Amino acid sequence: MTTLQHDTITFLSDYGHVDEFVGVVKSVIRSIAPGVTVVDLTHDIEPHDVRGGGLTLARSAQYLVPGVVLAVVDPGVATPRRAIAVEVGDGESVLVGPDNGLLAPAVAMVGGATRAVALTNTDYQLPAPGPTFAGRDVFAPAAAHLCNGVDLEELGNLVDPNTLMPGLMPVAREENGAIVGDVLWVDRYGNAQLNVDPDEVAAWGDRIRLRFSETNRTARRVDSYAALKTGEIGLVVDSYGLLSVSVDRGSASAELGLRPGDPITLDPLVDEEDQTVPVRLGRRQ
Amino acid sequence: MTTLQHDTITFLSDYGHVDEFVGVVKSVIRSIAPGVTVVDLTHDIEPHDVRGGGLTLARSAQYLVPGVVLAVVDPGVATPRRAIAVEVGDGESVLVGPDNGLLAPAVAMVGGATRAVALTNTDYQLPAPGPTFAGRDVFAPAAAHLCNGVDLEELGNLVDPNTLMPGLMPVAREENGAIVGDVLWVDRYGNAQLNVDPDEVAAWGDRIRLRFSETNRTARRVDSYAALKTGEIGLVVDSYGLLSVSVDRGSASAELGLRPGDPITLDPLVDEEDQTVPVRLGRRQ
Amino acid sequence: MTTLQHDTITFLSDYGHVDEFVGVVKSVIRSIAPGVTVVDLTHDIEPHDVRGGGLTLARSAQYLVPGVVLAVVDPGVATPRRAIAVEVGDGESVLVGPDNGLLAPAVAMVGGATRAVALTNTDYQLPAPGPTFAGRDVFAPAAAHLCNGVDLEELGNLVDPNTLMPGLMPVAREENGAIVGDVLWVDRYGNAQLNVDPDEVAAWGDRIRLRFSETNRTARRVDSYAALKTGEIGLVVDSYGLLSVSVDRGSASAELGLRPGDPITLDPLVDEEDQTVPVRLGRRQ
Repeated sequence: MTTLQHDTITFLSDYGHVDEFVGVVKSVIRSIAPGVTVVDLTHDIEPHDVRGGGLTLARSAQYLVPGVVLAVVDPGVATPRRAIAVEVGDGESVLVGPDNGLLAPAVAMVGGATRAVALTNTDYQLPAPGPTFAGRDVFAPAAAHLCNGVDLEELGNLVDPNTLMPGLMPVAREENGAIVGDVLWVDRYGNAQLNVDPDEVAAWGDRIRLRFSETNRTARRVDSYAALKTGEIGLVVDSYGLLSVSVDRGSASAELGLRPGDPITLDPLVDEEDQTVPVRLGRRQ
Repeated sequence: MTTLQHDTITFLSDYGHVDEFVGVVKSVIRSIAPGVTVVDLTHDIEPHDVRGGGLTLARSAQYLVPGVVLAVVDPGVATPRRAIAVEVGDGESVLVGPDNGLLAPAVAMVGGATRAVALTNTDYQLPAPGPTFAGRDVFAPAAAHLCNGVDLEELGNLVDPNTLMPGLMPVAREENGAIVGDVLWVDRYGNAQLNVDPDEVAAWGDRIRLRFSETNRTARRVDSYAALKTGEIGLVVDSYGLLSVSVDRGSASAELGLRPGDPITLDPLVDEEDQTVPVRLGRRQ
Repeated sequence: MTTLQHDTITFLSDYGHVDEFVGVVKSVIRSIAPGVTVVDLTHDIEPHDVRGGGLTLARSAQYLVPGVVLAVVDPGVATPRRAIAVEVGDGESVLVGPDNGLLAPAVAMVGGATRAVALTNTDYQLPAPGPTFAGRDVFAPAAAHLCNGVDLEELGNLVDPNTLMPGLMPVAREENGAIVGDVLWVDRYGNAQLNVDPDEVAAWGDRIRLRFSETNRTARRVDSYAALKTGEIGLVVDSYGLLSVSVDRGSASAELGLRPGDPITLDPLVDEEDQTVPVRLGRRQ
């Protein structure tokens, strides 16, 4: 086996696991670059959810083995949208995918692009019976050839990294003493990650008011899910260092109706507001 | 590590991902043939769906790395149905699985069997606490021993390839100028692949009538999903070169109620039929 | 590549496949121990289902390649619950995970622990932005370092194996000639595995009465699913050697409402009970 330029391809897509798409892409990679290991990041990005795929890549970026990242969430397949390979870290890694904003958040996370090309050289692509499976015909061959040591610029024409489609990373803002943010992600356990740094609410004490849709709830800052009582809503610093709305052994997303992209406002809790509504004796209508 | 006869096992099943079946099969393979790489094609074939598994293998066949293909969709496990290994390409690859039609379409795609055996030699099987997990006890050991260089004929008795159970591949037919076909496959995105070659409708122009269940719809031939307007139904040449009923960023299957195996008829569209119903001025009841 | 102490990590979790958790763990392993192969056992254990994860590991244990087993179902993450590594077979294999009973049934299956440590040495952990992803920050690094030959006792303080949290393995009992057991597991096909050995009912003949919730059903002992007629309920010796309630090409679990953990009683069938209710001629109200 010859020496590889990269020995790992990290692979993310919205292909799911039911069809053969992921397996066929891996088989194409193995045909071209047999010694490469493919690490699946996830293939269950919602179909066509470029935003969700981009956030997933960005969260993972700092933990990935250097090498090639192959990312395919590509609703514009077979249109003139560009297929690209983006080099970062002066060649330590290359991200391959459609130019639709999917790669951009991760590229930004690791310091920006050092070079980029459009994948226009059909010598490094498979002939395709139809144009809708670019993962198999364009992206996987590019990733595999990069592992084999083919230079980035052989795969197509250099493009100015500044012309690449940017990713959309929603940023929280302060407004009248409150923090107006968004749900970035709901994980398998139902934790709703917010784009809010714990430092921003560090001075607010243990209890924080959450406002979303037409609801008002009080959450408690805790260090673990298990510290929450039944029925209690928590704000936990999650594994990426962001605040996450959580409940213990249940789904905060399901209980509160929080979905990725939902706006949410955090307020410091004034003590009086936290009182139980006083009950007055006497008959009430 | 000794030299392997085959270094890749491509693995398809209806085992799903929830139980440990796939992992146990891989562990058995690794115990017998440690240097082999297993490429998962898919494990989410519907339980017992021999037809769906066979079509998936056939679609993928031309893209697979040469080696061993292990395929298990096996409703007749523990009955006298044969367990088989089918050599193709004079030994370039071997397909291993139950003799129930699952392997047949792929074998036909790659030129037919050159040899076949029934897996009757228990020396190359695991002792089993119960007879219902042939993937673990019969098929995985056979696949792994083949990789290690054990000859096909050591695994059991030669059988005449003509006695193997054929696969059922539905073929479209012409009828009074229309094409009467079937939905072969619905993919994750909801595209409904038909057993209809685009050449068969090449002379019909851009708009084609679809008839299925009791519905009549007009579809437009387009080159990409993104070329479709909201609400419009498309006929796209899919990544395997067949016509596929599609909508943009939505599921044609869900919108139109098309499922694998459903019959569908394509008609050339006579111009008059394509008119909007004329609106007459004046009061209407 | 240096020689590895272990070249395989078998990985089970409740992380699912939608989020990037599994991929990030594998990337961390590959960063520390590049030559190691990770075999996924399953990642679709129900969130927080320590019992289900423990039973899955125990069922699989005898089929796993020796090496490191990484198992993470960890509702107590970020609480003072211990993170542990448990050596079995005098070092042939090591199981790594939370000390919550998850590892215990598999450890017992393979002969018990020979050594155990609490994973307290942070030199072999990743710095974490937040404490809730121990799979990434604590368990995966421990597993990878063990593969590289780091001694168990470098990872933390020895603990007495007798102080580890036991697993709960429900045991069937005899009661007035009946066997009172439980559903251990429902697999993808809907077969309901019972904690009942076929030897215990060997003298009862082919037909056995099942009592569960408020239902009474007659099941027939058969050797294969396919031996069952439509509508008939079977008791099959499953691939782990236990009795399993099954129907042919359908889900016994769905048809009978059997779920993991449900109690079920097996009775020998007295001949008279097996009669069809006699029909009397004449008018009936």
